[in-house]
Amino acid sequence: MKVSIIGIGLIGGSMARALRIAELADQIYGVDSNKEHIKVALELGIIDKEIELAQTPLQSDLIIVATPVNHIVEIVSSLLDLVTDQIIIDVGSTKSTLMAAIKSHPKRGRFVGTHPMAGTEYSGPQAAIPDLFINRCSVLVDIDDSDRDAVELVENVYRSMAMTIVYHDSADHDIHSAYVSHISHISSFALALTVLEKEKNEKRIFELAGGGFRSTVRLANSNADTWVPIFEQNRDFVLDVLDEHINTISKFRTMLIKKDFQGFREMIEQANQIKKIVN
Amino acid sequence: MKVSIIGIGLIGGSMARALRIAELADQIYGVDSNKEHIKVALELGIIDKEIELAQTPLQSDLIIVATPVNHIVEIVSSLLDLVTDQIIIDVGSTKSTLMAAIKSHPKRGRFVGTHPMAGTEYSGPQAAIPDLFINRCSVLVDIDDSDRDAVELVENVYRSMAMTIVYHDSADHDIHSAYVSHISHISSFALALTVLEKEKNEKRIFELAGGGFRSTVRLANSNADTWVPIFEQNRDFVLDVLDEHINTISKFRTMLIKKDFQGFREMIEQANQIKKIVN
Repeated sequence: MKVSIIGIGLIGGSMARALRIAELADQIYGVDSNKEHIKVALELGIIDKEIELAQTPLQSDLIIVATPVNHIVEIVSSLLDLVTDQIIIDVGSTKSTLMAAIKSHPKRGRFVGTHPMAGTEYSGPQAAIPDLFINRCSVLVDIDDSDRDAVELVENVYRSMAMTIVYHDSADHDIHSAYVSHISHISSFALALTVLEKEKNEKRIFELAGGGFRSTVRLANSNADTWVPIFEQNRDFVLDVLDEHINTISKFRTMLIKKDFQGFREMIEQANQIKKIVN
Repeated sequence: MKVSIIGIGLIGGSMARALRIAELADQIYGVDSNKEHIKVALELGIIDKEIELAQTPLQSDLIIVATPVNHIVEIVSSLLDLVTDQIIIDVGSTKSTLMAAIKSHPKRGRFVGTHPMAGTEYSGPQAAIPDLFINRCSVLVDIDDSDRDAVELVENVYRSMAMTIVYHDSADHDIHSAYVSHISHISSFALALTVLEKEKNEKRIFELAGGGFRSTVRLANSNADTWVPIFEQNRDFVLDVLDEHINTISKFRTMLIKKDFQGFREMIEQANQIKKIVN
């Protein structure tokens, strides 16, 4: 299979590497407005050749759109105008805006909306790793609007990366992504800013940073180009979960002020329940 | 050297294992009010023998107090009443309360307050790992109140575990621990509670939890017995940094409400500065 990848960053680059290991891609073409990304991706063997966006339908069986979400609508729409039976997927973190925009396109069936739930705090092709997706979950969105053969190929692609697959509609996807993934990023950005504000002595932060702080603040390294458009598109659901988060932190504050350490203990023990789910 | 460890949990157990690998301890005795901890620690070879608390000065050259911080004051005070030239250290996360309590003890010089900045979200002797401390920092507190030979032995112990050593006074230690370590725990507890509250479907959390969410929520597994006394003793400094944290998260909220995505971007880029310090 010939594959084109639009946006050779952490996710697009890791998809390329995983597809090559799974022997699903004979040829991988790359499109990226950042010429440094193309250079690095060629050097690292992530892609075989640079290609123009408009050439990808002619040259490939599968086109993977892995740009920041603010560019996905325009790119997918322009590709749908060009495809015959090729398949296009995106791997973006928000879905409602995109799905609404292409809903009535005559070629809508050739597109499959996907969100592989994996990532690191790093970005760019040099951050791409082939085993990023192993044992993670990929969400396929609004598949009733996609052609059956397109969905089957995409399922095959993700299964070849050792991913499990779940199916959501686009609104559900965006709500649940806000509740789990997007709020984690704000929490980590805010922790980093708090520590940088209170602890003016950077050497002290370095000295006192144990494994726990490093883990909690890891996502604060995430790229603004990727994340600002996600928060922009998913603003309402993020605001909803953000209010809950502020309320929860404020409860910890109230208990400290009141010296209600029994209540504080109960909240910690309730938080410990997360270990049944993610460990 | 003969070593007694009071409290064979994650930190006490890991100290035992690290001391054995560094060949600094010939015999390791264990004290723990939890008899299951003693049983596991004996089975895993973490300690050689159980011992009574009051026997530790007679039987050991170095006594390491690794209990939750609410028990440390009483234990250290009672041990200071018994020692001649043996050395006692603690490894607790708060220091001001303890240091004030033992300030005038005639044997104060035999005690060294320490805080090795390392940990995981797990607890108990089964969580002990010998390389927990490698490349981390250990804080030695108020060393002017300790005898020179005691400080030198403790420096030697931590250097043998490949730790770097810094020196703080106890108030400084507690402020900076609140600013870096203690706030990270509240942030992670609050994130877990938020997600558990909003996302009632636990299967959804499991499916959508990528590496980022797992990392940010890791500390939410931390043990209430360890952490409630830390927040109790360090309440005022924690409240100070907690207010800053709530303000910062509220700023993200305000920017979303106002759709000020340029401001949102600037905050993310500022948060990214943390990578210069902890990566």
